[in-house]
Amino acid sequence: MSQNKHQPGRTILASTISKTYDQEIKEKLNTLKKVKPNGPLLVGFLANNDPAARMYAQWTQKTSESLGIRYQLREMEDPDFLEESIIDANEDDEIDGIMIYFPVFGNAQDQYLQQVVKKEKDVEGLNHVYYQNLYHNVRFLDPPDNQLKSILPCTPLAIVKILEFLKIYNPLLPEGNRLFGKKCVVINRSEIVGRPLAALLANDGAIVYSVDINNIQKFTRGESLKFTKHHVEDLGDYSEDLLKKCCQDSDIIITGVPSENYKFPTEYLKDGSTCINFSSFKNFDDSVKEKASLYIPMTGKVTIAMLLRNMLRLVENSLKLKEKRTQTN
Amino acid sequence: MSQNKHQPGRTILASTISKTYDQEIKEKLNTLKKVKPNGPLLVGFLANNDPAARMYAQWTQKTSESLGIRYQLREMEDPDFLEESIIDANEDDEIDGIMIYFPVFGNAQDQYLQQVVKKEKDVEGLNHVYYQNLYHNVRFLDPPDNQLKSILPCTPLAIVKILEFLKIYNPLLPEGNRLFGKKCVVINRSEIVGRPLAALLANDGAIVYSVDINNIQKFTRGESLKFTKHHVEDLGDYSEDLLKKCCQDSDIIITGVPSENYKFPTEYLKDGSTCINFSSFKNFDDSVKEKASLYIPMTGKVTIAMLLRNMLRLVENSLKLKEKRTQTN
Repeated sequence: MSQNKHQPGRTILASTISKTYDQEIKEKLNTLKKVKPNGPLLVGFLANNDPAARMYAQWTQKTSESLGIRYQLREMEDPDFLEESIIDANEDDEIDGIMIYFPVFGNAQDQYLQQVVKKEKDVEGLNHVYYQNLYHNVRFLDPPDNQLKSILPCTPLAIVKILEFLKIYNPLLPEGNRLFGKKCVVINRSEIVGRPLAALLANDGAIVYSVDINNIQKFTRGESLKFTKHHVEDLGDYSEDLLKKCCQDSDIIITGVPSENYKFPTEYLKDGSTCINFSSFKNFDDSVKEKASLYIPMTGKVTIAMLLRNMLRLVENSLKLKEKRTQTN
Repeated sequence: MSQNKHQPGRTILASTISKTYDQEIKEKLNTLKKVKPNGPLLVGFLANNDPAARMYAQWTQKTSESLGIRYQLREMEDPDFLEESIIDANEDDEIDGIMIYFPVFGNAQDQYLQQVVKKEKDVEGLNHVYYQNLYHNVRFLDPPDNQLKSILPCTPLAIVKILEFLKIYNPLLPEGNRLFGKKCVVINRSEIVGRPLAALLANDGAIVYSVDINNIQKFTRGESLKFTKHHVEDLGDYSEDLLKKCCQDSDIIITGVPSENYKFPTEYLKDGSTCINFSSFKNFDDSVKEKASLYIPMTGKVTIAMLLRNMLRLVENSLKLKEKRTQTN
């Protein structure tokens, strides 16, 4: 009883959530193996000495193999050779999915590299086409046929799937509006995760406060979800007061601050909110458990499940495309 | 005589060099007007309050109109509406070229925006396809036909054209090897100018020392130009000693440091070297004139000539492509 009083909510681990995708991945894999007996091959490129990247690579390998997906880690000492290796992998028919463990150069050259991966093998969903579809709430690659589903960048997608698992997405509402009425704060506005995530959540009906060190923006589909995609409104320069105001109003707080020292102020939380941290650093301290109803301290394992799910989707898309072409000829 | 002694070389203004393209642009334009009587239309998007960007826009307008090219400046108060306006311009058949005056958001979102401009209208040459071609020394968009020339990002291209004007590119050498034997230092390794410029010069046969605040790299096509494209070698962490060593050996020093306070140390120059500054700040002080044989204090006007040249090339490419398709059908 006393424990319950101190921790009225629950902490849920990413591994609990990622496990729910094992069955789906295995089933799709079995169907695929009828066409591709060896199953798909995922290649990860590691060209840094970041221990976090190495651990992520090991997890990806372990998860892939446990589900029956072939995984190959290609390590490079000299990142200047990475681009050519990616191009070789783009052209290698044996390889179905390619991912890069970032950072490589740790600057804008990394964004160049992301676009070198052929979009048909881009399991991380980082290609410009996928981002542009995401921002425009376009869910297929071949409108108006709509047979080939677009790919979503895997960390934002993982957070959507976590919110589905946590029943924050309400399945009674029409698809695409399942966050209607929800308010979220996203602390991070990187091009890789924070900004696309804010857009995704707003596209699904939420009011999203997107926070970075400069300012706070509001992403919404307008009153009564009157727009088909999110719009952005500047609320003002970043200040603790403005952040506090946004948080006190919010059902969901999502943090992604890449710093060991950053801790989200627990006192900003409204009672019973949902807290998700996607940073590799712990952005919430333990007091969060006294205020949050649901707390997800890390998301990496769900991200890996989404990587594999994306890969299977890419393979399905390429098979459908071949079929389409055969029908046309 | 005494003046000559103090300034043994020459300062050459960008306007002198850009003028040499006026005739070429006008002639191409006259040919084009047979097919497109109104001539091409260039649209510039300005969504910041940067006075340098506004001046650049005014120059572009003035140059375009003086040569008989239609130019439209579209100003936006709210940068959050810029993406939709670009997409509208992408789809507007009346518009032939699109450019954005950066910075807009001043962060990675600007790289996203660059890729929103349709590559067929990207006069600045910022599309990933153009950069990837540049790095791989691929000069056409349609190998092996090689009828459609690839576009080069306009600032690196302007510097190449300046080096051609200055006779540093030696026309007696085979095309593609005209910098063989030359050594250059490029101080800036941004993804927009410094890194592609180093690659371009190395692809044309030079040994290039590429400098940023972290380290110094050497871009070359190998001994006796044995490779078909540049390779990169790390020389070590940035230090004044290493920079000095690279400069003392170099024929050409190119600076692009975006800071009012930075001044290249004149004492590093070897006598008679060529100095080019593409930063909007003056990276050389006046003493450069005593050491340099040729000194180009600014490059903006040549960049604008390259913008217009790129636009005409894009229009030519689209006409050729239409022709090709008609022949195929």
